[in-house]
Amino acid sequence: MRQIENGGVCFPKGFTAAGVKAGIKVSGNSDLALLYSKEPAKCFAVFTKNQVQAAPVLYDKEVLSGNNIISAVVINSGNANACTGDQGYADAVSMAELTERELSLRRYSVLVGSTGVIGRKLPMEKITAAIPELVKNLSTENSELFAKSICTTDTIIKTGSVSVQTSMGEIRFGGSCKGSGMIHPDMATMLAYITTDLRLPEDFLAEFKDLVNESFNAITVDGDMSTNDTCILLANGQSAVFLNDLSISERADVRSALFDLMKHLALQIVIDGEGATKKVEIEVCGARNKTEAMQVAKSIATSNLVKCAFFGEDPNWGRIVSSAGASGVVFPADKLSLYFEDVPVVKGGVPVEAALDKLAEIVKRKEYKISLDLGLGPAMASVFTSDLSYDYVKINAEYTT
Amino acid sequence: MRQIENGGVCFPKGFTAAGVKAGIKVSGNSDLALLYSKEPAKCFAVFTKNQVQAAPVLYDKEVLSGNNIISAVVINSGNANACTGDQGYADAVSMAELTERELSLRRYSVLVGSTGVIGRKLPMEKITAAIPELVKNLSTENSELFAKSICTTDTIIKTGSVSVQTSMGEIRFGGSCKGSGMIHPDMATMLAYITTDLRLPEDFLAEFKDLVNESFNAITVDGDMSTNDTCILLANGQSAVFLNDLSISERADVRSALFDLMKHLALQIVIDGEGATKKVEIEVCGARNKTEAMQVAKSIATSNLVKCAFFGEDPNWGRIVSSAGASGVVFPADKLSLYFEDVPVVKGGVPVEAALDKLAEIVKRKEYKISLDLGLGPAMASVFTSDLSYDYVKINAEYTT
Repeated sequence: MRQIENGGVCFPKGFTAAGVKAGIKVSGNSDLALLYSKEPAKCFAVFTKNQVQAAPVLYDKEVLSGNNIISAVVINSGNANACTGDQGYADAVSMAELTERELSLRRYSVLVGSTGVIGRKLPMEKITAAIPELVKNLSTENSELFAKSICTTDTIIKTGSVSVQTSMGEIRFGGSCKGSGMIHPDMATMLAYITTDLRLPEDFLAEFKDLVNESFNAITVDGDMSTNDTCILLANGQSAVFLNDLSISERADVRSALFDLMKHLALQIVIDGEGATKKVEIEVCGARNKTEAMQVAKSIATSNLVKCAFFGEDPNWGRIVSSAGASGVVFPADKLSLYFEDVPVVKGGVPVEAALDKLAEIVKRKEYKISLDLGLGPAMASVFTSDLSYDYVKINAEYTT
Repeated sequence: MRQIENGGVCFPKGFTAAGVKAGIKVSGNSDLALLYSKEPAKCFAVFTKNQVQAAPVLYDKEVLSGNNIISAVVINSGNANACTGDQGYADAVSMAELTERELSLRRYSVLVGSTGVIGRKLPMEKITAAIPELVKNLSTENSELFAKSICTTDTIIKTGSVSVQTSMGEIRFGGSCKGSGMIHPDMATMLAYITTDLRLPEDFLAEFKDLVNESFNAITVDGDMSTNDTCILLANGQSAVFLNDLSISERADVRSALFDLMKHLALQIVIDGEGATKKVEIEVCGARNKTEAMQVAKSIATSNLVKCAFFGEDPNWGRIVSSAGASGVVFPADKLSLYFEDVPVVKGGVPVEAALDKLAEIVKRKEYKISLDLGLGPAMASVFTSDLSYDYVKINAEYTT
């Protein structure tokens, strides 16, 4: 994986951002964010599959079903605008319209995002009052302020940037994200915003979905999918480089740069997972196909017993094998092999004499990899997970509505 | 639900049981158990669907594929005999054969059960040495000793019994179970043994599976399905009452008595769940069909965020609605209604003004019910779950292999 810098959403040409304190958060922290591209950008978006979708998700999907040329995204933190009925939808529309008016943009050129408490009405007076100031604040210097303004319980801001030198010129990617699944009492959401000055073809959405599946959808902190999860890519073409004009190897390079940035952002979410003390990669290989590999990896990565063992620094392979068996994927137990890093613990379904001191050293690390080989085929998948600690329970139990 | 007494597996006519200290458990507690019916019994069994199945599960399935007339079950605790390869299977066969020999029974008339650490060889010398004494100990007085001998991390023994007066005479049910999902480091298993002196028809298995689905399969402590889960019903016909000779209303009465016993046993597992301080019923109604109702209920019942909120005594309905939405079942969010006991918190997908003092009182109870109405159809299902506490993490993290 290549080196990712901390440039953020304003790193690519033509993007500015802003953040202000609108007074939505009780803490008084910055809670209203704006991302803007002077040149309208092509938008690619992936939303939560939760049946209960927040108003901003419903609104964005509605806008994007009509056109995918977007100039800005306005995001509030501190309130998810979820389970808020018709009023909530009307409020999401208002947020977009107010921003469009303030930026002198056409209707349906601004998307909306929200993250925070579920089931409470948005304080629209506060948001309405803050939008003019928000627009005034737009600057190429505000990547970090933007990153901060979309945070809820995050303890670190999450930004990243990368550039690629192509035969047609330099292209840049920047991004920012917050949260992880549902990571706080009533707090909903993984939000991710990626920007690029590369020109992308209309059909890039399928490829973007693949990248999301292997980055933001390949991490788990608590297995809960929120009502607000959103990942948006804005491509404004300001680099004058068009993806389809590049050579095959250059395209692969560009794709992998974008993927590395997305993975970098996703891994920051795991590291910042509630109460997390470990980041563990669960790699499942030897599967019949990628779907099954992912299903087994996710079953292991979301098992409370497995995650408690990570926290307890216990090389408890029985739980890992059992979670794999409970995943719903059919496989013969006698073909399983399991490794902690390069140390084998199970081969052909039975335990091998493991180097216990080596194992004990591995599980004490802050980051390590577990590999499960199903012995059935060529497919593999990786999921990154955190451990389940006292602090996870504390954070999620002690907050009272 | 009718009153369940504490009679245990020896309550029905013709059953005896035993338990001894074979030295498998490090603690030195009783760890080898035997259940015996002098008159061979018809056996109905449901096993784990985990792809990784312990040797005793594989052996029992093999035996029952040949014949379902069983005289005894021999069970050890302290070692799951799982992930033990060919040697493990041979050990399960030996346990059965040794017991058959000692009881002068024909081959394939004894089933085997194991629960405990995964991936360790059974100490067969200890088991072999203990079986003669185990058989000598058989007595109608040993229901509690049997219950104790199958325990691992359980803090209470789990027994139950019920009798039904029919027009053809009295019939009895007894039972015992242990553990819950995978409830301890490396510890595998929910084991349940039900006895009855009722004569049952060959085709009772389908009905028994339904009862298991709504009792033992309708509880969750940590969502993990173990390699050893087993539920066995032995019907020896010693009451001389044949189910098919009873009237329709009597049959319904008998069926509900058996169900109440199984539910009683299952609920004791939830109450004894690791670190549990709450028992919460998640009832999902208004579903299109039972499968979907169960899927939504299980999604809520296994959500860490929901379970942390139970522990924190927080009436956090946003998490419940979000977990339902993430279950994979398709439903419109604007038809949802949610109740804590009889207090509505959501109607038509939007929050209602809830009586907060009433809600606060309900979530402080040790037992309460949450009802989610999908508003789509006539089907419903219930799942019983516990909360996620500091002690759960403690128990599952601090043990080191």
